[in-house]
Amino acid sequence: MRISIVIFDDFTDIDLFLMWDLFNRVRLPEWDVRIVGEKSHHISATGLITATHGPIEDANQSDVVLFVSGRGTRTKIHDKLWLSRFNLNPERQMIASVCSGALLLAALGLLAGKTATTYPTTKQLLEGFGITVEEKPFIAHGNIATSGGCLAAQYVAGWVIEKKADKEWKDLVLKSIQPVGEGLKFSDAPELMKLYGPSAKVSVV
Amino acid sequence: MRISIVIFDDFTDIDLFLMWDLFNRVRLPEWDVRIVGEKSHHISATGLITATHGPIEDANQSDVVLFVSGRGTRTKIHDKLWLSRFNLNPERQMIASVCSGALLLAALGLLAGKTATTYPTTKQLLEGFGITVEEKPFIAHGNIATSGGCLAAQYVAGWVIEKKADKEWKDLVLKSIQPVGEGLKFSDAPELMKLYGPSAKVSVV
Repeated sequence: MRISIVIFDDFTDIDLFLMWDLFNRVRLPEWDVRIVGEKSHHISATGLITATHGPIEDANQSDVVLFVSGRGTRTKIHDKLWLSRFNLNPERQMIASVCSGALLLAALGLLAGKTATTYPTTKQLLEGFGITVEEKPFIAHGNIATSGGCLAAQYVAGWVIEKKADKEWKDLVLKSIQPVGEGLKFSDAPELMKLYGPSAKVSVV
Repeated sequence: MRISIVIFDDFTDIDLFLMWDLFNRVRLPEWDVRIVGEKSHHISATGLITATHGPIEDANQSDVVLFVSGRGTRTKIHDKLWLSRFNLNPERQMIASVCSGALLLAALGLLAGKTATTYPTTKQLLEGFGITVEEKPFIAHGNIATSGGCLAAQYVAGWVIEKKADKEWKDLVLKSIQPVGEGLKFSDAPELMKLYGPSAKVSVV
């Protein structure tokens, strides 16, 4: 079970790192999360240098492909060489976007005939692809989903984890990042050790 | 106005990157956000290599000092050399933690006589410092604050931004990451350009 998160220069920091952190909380032996891009490193919108684990083509062999957002999407929707490296298939892959990542799904022809959501500042641009944009945090049509607003990445993660792991993992992972007293309780500590035990990928927070 | 976020090896990814992204949305000329640590790079709990912008001592000269969480805190509370490099003063600095970062505030003697909050799995360890731990997302006593649960970093960011910028910036920055239809509306687009305009630090998401 491989999840590829696609990045590019000028990506929005939190849209990558929130999904990355959530997916890494799932402790299943075959669970493989990677960041892919066209360079060995990409620079985020705030200037953070982030290494990739593999090339764009890794996405084509993944069970789940996720597109982050950022100003870089405005360049990438016109980058035919970059777009041509993707060979995605919603029949066998779950494919989703956060915020302006929806522009990339549109540019790849994956949103044709579907409704979608995106960040407020990119609504018009997405409509320019002939797509009906709805004011919702998350919209899924079969194996293709879009989300709008950085924290809506939780819906994307939940959608994937429930389908590729199970509802128990989904509920536990999403609960594990909620504020204490607002979804997370001190009495949840024993259950949380399932995420943070000795062999966990993510350490105890 | 300098904000230093203190990291170390085995830090929790989202606790750093959420605060980092939020603080970088404030567009004020004198607004300086940096990641500090004892090495040129630190490795997150999930293995991401993150560069620091300066040494720990930069925190001592900062207006705001923030401690992230992670398994690394268990080592750092016993690292007397590391702790001795801090010379923080809540009379002139705002100081706060996310999740197990509260252990570091405690080890530095900053929580003496105060109530605090932390992540469920570190409640007992924090109590071991003689501190009364309350099941709340955010607790502030004057210039010292603790938060529990990764997404409670929003309370820390809001607390700092309201005090060091103003309530308008706080409200706009926190709104900008909410899910569409759940705190963020398509009609917010013009206002959001204040964060993402041509000279913004963070690009349009």
